[in-house]
Amino acid sequence: MMTAVILIHCVDQPGIVARVTEFIHSNRGNVLSLEQHVDRDAGRFFMRLKWDLDRFMIPREKIGEYFQTLIAAPYGMTFDLYFSGQKPRMAVFVSKMSHCLYDILSRWESGDWQVEIPLIVSNHTDMQPIAERFGIPFRHFPVSKENKVEQEAGQLKLLRRESIDLIVLARYMQVLSADFLKHYPHRVINIHHSFLPAFAGAKPYHAAYERGVKIIGATCHYVTEELDAGPIIEQDVIRVSHKDSPDAFARKGKDLEKIVLARGVFLHIQRKLLVYDNRTVVFG
Amino acid sequence: MMTAVILIHCVDQPGIVARVTEFIHSNRGNVLSLEQHVDRDAGRFFMRLKWDLDRFMIPREKIGEYFQTLIAAPYGMTFDLYFSGQKPRMAVFVSKMSHCLYDILSRWESGDWQVEIPLIVSNHTDMQPIAERFGIPFRHFPVSKENKVEQEAGQLKLLRRESIDLIVLARYMQVLSADFLKHYPHRVINIHHSFLPAFAGAKPYHAAYERGVKIIGATCHYVTEELDAGPIIEQDVIRVSHKDSPDAFARKGKDLEKIVLARGVFLHIQRKLLVYDNRTVVFG
Amino acid sequence: MMTAVILIHCVDQPGIVARVTEFIHSNRGNVLSLEQHVDRDAGRFFMRLKWDLDRFMIPREKIGEYFQTLIAAPYGMTFDLYFSGQKPRMAVFVSKMSHCLYDILSRWESGDWQVEIPLIVSNHTDMQPIAERFGIPFRHFPVSKENKVEQEAGQLKLLRRESIDLIVLARYMQVLSADFLKHYPHRVINIHHSFLPAFAGAKPYHAAYERGVKIIGATCHYVTEELDAGPIIEQDVIRVSHKDSPDAFARKGKDLEKIVLARGVFLHIQRKLLVYDNRTVVFG
Amino acid sequence: MMTAVILIHCVDQPGIVARVTEFIHSNRGNVLSLEQHVDRDAGRFFMRLKWDLDRFMIPREKIGEYFQTLIAAPYGMTFDLYFSGQKPRMAVFVSKMSHCLYDILSRWESGDWQVEIPLIVSNHTDMQPIAERFGIPFRHFPVSKENKVEQEAGQLKLLRRESIDLIVLARYMQVLSADFLKHYPHRVINIHHSFLPAFAGAKPYHAAYERGVKIIGATCHYVTEELDAGPIIEQDVIRVSHKDSPDAFARKGKDLEKIVLARGVFLHIQRKLLVYDNRTVVFG
Repeated sequence: MMTAVILIHCVDQPGIVARVTEFIHSNRGNVLSLEQHVDRDAGRFFMRLKWDLDRFMIPREKIGEYFQTLIAAPYGMTFDLYFSGQKPRMAVFVSKMSHCLYDILSRWESGDWQVEIPLIVSNHTDMQPIAERFGIPFRHFPVSKENKVEQEAGQLKLLRRESIDLIVLARYMQVLSADFLKHYPHRVINIHHSFLPAFAGAKPYHAAYERGVKIIGATCHYVTEELDAGPIIEQDVIRVSHKDSPDAFARKGKDLEKIVLARGVFLHIQRKLLVYDNRTVVFG
Repeated sequence: MMTAVILIHCVDQPGIVARVTEFIHSNRGNVLSLEQHVDRDAGRFFMRLKWDLDRFMIPREKIGEYFQTLIAAPYGMTFDLYFSGQKPRMAVFVSKMSHCLYDILSRWESGDWQVEIPLIVSNHTDMQPIAERFGIPFRHFPVSKENKVEQEAGQLKLLRRESIDLIVLARYMQVLSADFLKHYPHRVINIHHSFLPAFAGAKPYHAAYERGVKIIGATCHYVTEELDAGPIIEQDVIRVSHKDSPDAFARKGKDLEKIVLARGVFLHIQRKLLVYDNRTVVFG
Repeated sequence: MMTAVILIHCVDQPGIVARVTEFIHSNRGNVLSLEQHVDRDAGRFFMRLKWDLDRFMIPREKIGEYFQTLIAAPYGMTFDLYFSGQKPRMAVFVSKMSHCLYDILSRWESGDWQVEIPLIVSNHTDMQPIAERFGIPFRHFPVSKENKVEQEAGQLKLLRRESIDLIVLARYMQVLSADFLKHYPHRVINIHHSFLPAFAGAKPYHAAYERGVKIIGATCHYVTEELDAGPIIEQDVIRVSHKDSPDAFARKGKDLEKIVLARGVFLHIQRKLLVYDNRTVVFG
Repeated sequence: MMTAVILIHCVDQPGIVARVTEFIHSNRGNVLSLEQHVDRDAGRFFMRLKWDLDRFMIPREKIGEYFQTLIAAPYGMTFDLYFSGQKPRMAVFVSKMSHCLYDILSRWESGDWQVEIPLIVSNHTDMQPIAERFGIPFRHFPVSKENKVEQEAGQLKLLRRESIDLIVLARYMQVLSADFLKHYPHRVINIHHSFLPAFAGAKPYHAAYERGVKIIGATCHYVTEELDAGPIIEQDVIRVSHKDSPDAFARKGKDLEKIVLARGVFLHIQRKLLVYDNRTVVFG
């Protein structure tokens, strides 16, 4: 079955659901799932709708145009439209740690994730052998204060050439510049090894140990210009005790990091995420 | 704001969402939230829709009739309709333990739950002083093998007189007969002190201890004729260790029991539960 | 069975466990449980030991003196000694919310907690009827900027008269002064409604909502001079979603608050907590 | 620092801790951590003790003999003795799914686990390429009803030749015979994809879906003759909803399986597990 997913947000106003579902129905689409949410304080309307395209009368390549003209324009909507079969093209950025990388590649290889991974980028060469084992091109961009602008330019060129539409920072220990991020708004997903906003920045496990917390966390978020302050996609925690050293925090945390990152990326791949006002709407 | 909630299920067929939302919209209702789900294997459609009644053109007492005639009948729907301001009338059944009872009464007294509690029923008198402190009528029905039929008849008479529409078994240690349950289909909520289906029946904490599990659970479910086999509403777990005796299991479990029961009852009160094929659909 | 619990910490040095257990054994005590931990970085030794007093040859009232002379002094130990049957005398401080108070009183009334609660203190009178229902003296100390010093003096006088050795702040919305706290070092337990160190200070649920977190938490900690920065005893979290308003955060959070506070207080009552360097050692 | 770990269990009796710690201390060992537990109902004593060997006066190869003669024999103890630097030799058994295998190999390759993995065994060849990428010998034993006895004999021969002391069943879909297990008592670790004892046997995700549970789990346990009934090492759960199909249960479950299996194996590797009466004592 071919399906389409549409994500919509706009100012709340009467009749939106009726109008959109009537559009689907009258053109012989069948709604497979619909989830709608109104943020009353902000007066905003959010919706995700998935429908069966098999007998839909509007050709796939024309749906966006028709929807824009007939519905989005009059209601002042912002929308994103996706079709089953379109696999996101994902680049993985890594530094020296392998746990998130193996986790991602294992999901991709087994077919659990409908994505293409044409590129692994790193500021080090440690992960090159892993990339090679999976047959994925590995590109080394050693980044320093001096060459950062130029290296990011090189990365962007490569990303464009490979038609990358999603960047996953799998414990990539470099801060991306605001200029770089402009090219991938809400398209760069990071895993931070703390339950944000606690312990933003460097060495969160040490900071957590010093504070004597009883739970540690990991946070998957879209990267924005402000460090560790982008829209949160997913978080989870695990218990620690006074017996755990900062090293034990880090070891336990690795399991969290890879699972929380994977959940966040999977939500993105399934087109279940919508960003508004630096927060995410996560459709179920 | 006056609001209405409608819960719908029927055989899946095209155009339902469009038809229902058009009904709301054309009569000047505004959809506040909508969640729809199709069980593809079973070919069933489920929906919960909440709308603003303030300018709705059909009088409240006529909405059910109109909906039945115009929509439910042609589509073969089953539906339930609720209005804000209608507080469920809830009876609490208890035996000798107070933790769930205090938890429920505390939520009711603070106004966190929009319910009326006109009645507490018990097979013992231990909880009578607590009922009295909260000013709630307490009725003692000592149940034995011999008098069970007659006592249940007395309970039913009382429940009818008090117009009870929801019964909460807050660690009530008696099995209700199939005859009794017929009067309250999916209207009796129980808390069982294990993660069902593990450890159904008596003494689950001892059984869990014997098996050496590392987590114990609690399960909130609708009561049906078959013991501990009704539709599950909510479950949660807590860690235990080899250091915990069966008594420690029971002590830790009490916290789970009251919280899981409260979550289940709250979902029911918010009209977020739909039962189909001995399972619950829990709208978010 | 009469039992004793000893909590020990000191600089790590060889032979401590052997020396202490030999002291117990040679005086006809039987070790019931022992947990020992060395913080290697800090070079500190921590131990909790519980033993059977029934045939112990040193009279109860002399054990502390003998232990001090024979063992604690030569090893430079700090220790606390407790006996079964000694119930801590606990004062509960509240403001206007009842959920933690009911939870505490319900545990006390059912005998789950071996404590005495001779006193409830509040800056408001809202909780007075609840105190009265449980037959516990309620004392009203309305606190303002102007009268704070004097009111705290009055509270301290009362606490001393009632021989209170543990103060539980059950959502008490006042900051206690450093002077007050000096009288109850590591004897004042608070529940803060966030996973500290995130969202310290006022209105944590609103701050969490604004940040768009996917989990909210509660933190039970000993109160120290610095606001929300004392040694953490226990923490836990619960999931929230974009559908949850700040009010829903607060409602969900109430369940966390009471359970996390209760776990923390219970650890204290069981003499399982040791504070060192603003962190807690929590024996299992 | 060279260290030793001893795990002890025996009938509870006075003076054990004193005697053992005196043995360590008087021979110039320093206790690094000690955890002791008495099961009062069973009258059993359990202890794990780790000590610093650097200045220990008894040569490593003689410690077992001395301990047996001087302490274990008089007290009727069962004990196991391990030394740092001795890496367990672990064989991984797999069928067709890669998620647990990648997870294990990734931990091993990064040095997070102090083990050797000289062998991967499978009843299929699907995982052979993964084994080869990691440079680990892969042996194919296709098992059928007819050849099971003979294939197990071949496996045992190979395991002995490779001096394997731990077998990890990483979603190995074959039942091992009682005869096979006799050679590896409490040395075969399995992951079962349910929270045992619920949904033992085949197709637990489908059974969980049919029952309509709200949480699914995974259980890591030692394999014994009775299917899915061995001593439980570790369990964890994850939430599911009515929206999740059995396939979604399986997908979510895969994350649980690999993490729970890894935690269980790591506890074994750290020598923190003791089995008694079909239950595990898990030292912290």
